[in-house]
Amino acid sequence: MEKLTIIKVGGKIVEEDASLQQLLNDFAQIEGHKVLVHGGGRSATKLAEKLGIETKMVNGRRITDKETLDITVMVYAGLVNKKIVAKLQEIEINALGLTGADMNIIRSDIRPVKEINYGFVGDVKQVDGKKLSLLIREGIVPILAPLTHDGNGNMLNTNADTIAGEAAKALALYFEVKLIYCFEMKGVMADITKEDSVIRDIDRQKFEELVKTAVVKDGMIPKLENAFDCITAGVKEVTITQSTDIKGINGTTIH
Amino acid sequence: MEKLTIIKVGGKIVEEDASLQQLLNDFAQIEGHKVLVHGGGRSATKLAEKLGIETKMVNGRRITDKETLDITVMVYAGLVNKKIVAKLQEIEINALGLTGADMNIIRSDIRPVKEINYGFVGDVKQVDGKKLSLLIREGIVPILAPLTHDGNGNMLNTNADTIAGEAAKALALYFEVKLIYCFEMKGVMADITKEDSVIRDIDRQKFEELVKTAVVKDGMIPKLENAFDCITAGVKEVTITQSTDIKGINGTTIH
Repeated sequence: MEKLTIIKVGGKIVEEDASLQQLLNDFAQIEGHKVLVHGGGRSATKLAEKLGIETKMVNGRRITDKETLDITVMVYAGLVNKKIVAKLQEIEINALGLTGADMNIIRSDIRPVKEINYGFVGDVKQVDGKKLSLLIREGIVPILAPLTHDGNGNMLNTNADTIAGEAAKALALYFEVKLIYCFEMKGVMADITKEDSVIRDIDRQKFEELVKTAVVKDGMIPKLENAFDCITAGVKEVTITQSTDIKGINGTTIH
Repeated sequence: MEKLTIIKVGGKIVEEDASLQQLLNDFAQIEGHKVLVHGGGRSATKLAEKLGIETKMVNGRRITDKETLDITVMVYAGLVNKKIVAKLQEIEINALGLTGADMNIIRSDIRPVKEINYGFVGDVKQVDGKKLSLLIREGIVPILAPLTHDGNGNMLNTNADTIAGEAAKALALYFEVKLIYCFEMKGVMADITKEDSVIRDIDRQKFEELVKTAVVKDGMIPKLENAFDCITAGVKEVTITQSTDIKGINGTTIH
């Protein structure tokens, strides 16, 4: 099977011109087929502030009322996505910006209200891997904004990590998929105070040991569980690394 | 050749929920291949106001400084475009929102500074009709936002009428193209005070007569000249009509 690299980057790196340019230059150098999934939360919060709209967060998650939804659509699908697309075109990468609504690529269900009403937030239901794979085989590089739709005419704010994971699973039927999650740390650390303590490889057995010994805890547990879900679904490998290392050379690889 | 209808609608109709829904229902009923080109200027002006950014207009044209460019990208490529795409997906139209940067579909030159510096405004240089035609033949319905790019990493604010005209010309190599411009009047009027005075057909000879007798004047002259340019370039017919008549049944047809 042909190789495909899916890279997920957070908001911060795409929202500052210098780090964005570096990221896109690195991205351009990745060989073979590729997909970029981006965030943009900081810019959304900034625009909301300027408009005097309060950003409500519960457990680190944005509550997306109608006004906030419009802001996320403007920032993610507009400002951030098109800046990336235009800059990639400049360096001859045939980028195509997409939300889940475009070509019905990613359908979501609006998150059910339990204790918390998250508002216009989508839980991914289906990724059309076939349609995405056809675009990719044509040499197109999809740039996915963290937005999906519900099929009832509504855009939905959707977690970028989830989009990257679900896209990787759906595309694993068509490509040998490598998924790279960029975040603020170098990888999964054996000792968070030691820069050189990155654990380079984790398989399921090692993961269980790391959890048992509390080396891996808190927010890292669902991150790794999500990575193993991808592996189970046929993704070749998942790497967790820094945004300055989008090739995943120095991060933690889950397989 | 297969038929293709390109419809250009202005900002007002897409910016009010009721008229937008009616427009999209009408659009869904158009048979054969289709493309929608939309504006969004009113929403951009509204957002600029809320952000305390002055909208500068010269001769009815927006001056697009860096801040204003970001606003047009957020509103045109984000808010307006994705609302249309999500609502078309709801009624089973396989919409794909595009700016000129996406897949390098429309390349522009930044408008040269003469008396007036329009800022980040693009004059269309090239439309990739081949790539667009491939998407269209796959059953995809492109929804074009009035934005292009310069190939140097910049998005450019671009007149929606121009985009519709240039896309029609480029696609005339691949389809029998009908181009429909929707505006505030019923069509070209013999007597602007009489609602039932729409001139139903205009060919080049009639156009010259109408200009000579001053029935057609002012802003209508470049509009019609633009329409004849399309005809010369191989577009089958151009209709100028009201937004409530996107099938172009009661408007003025130029051929």
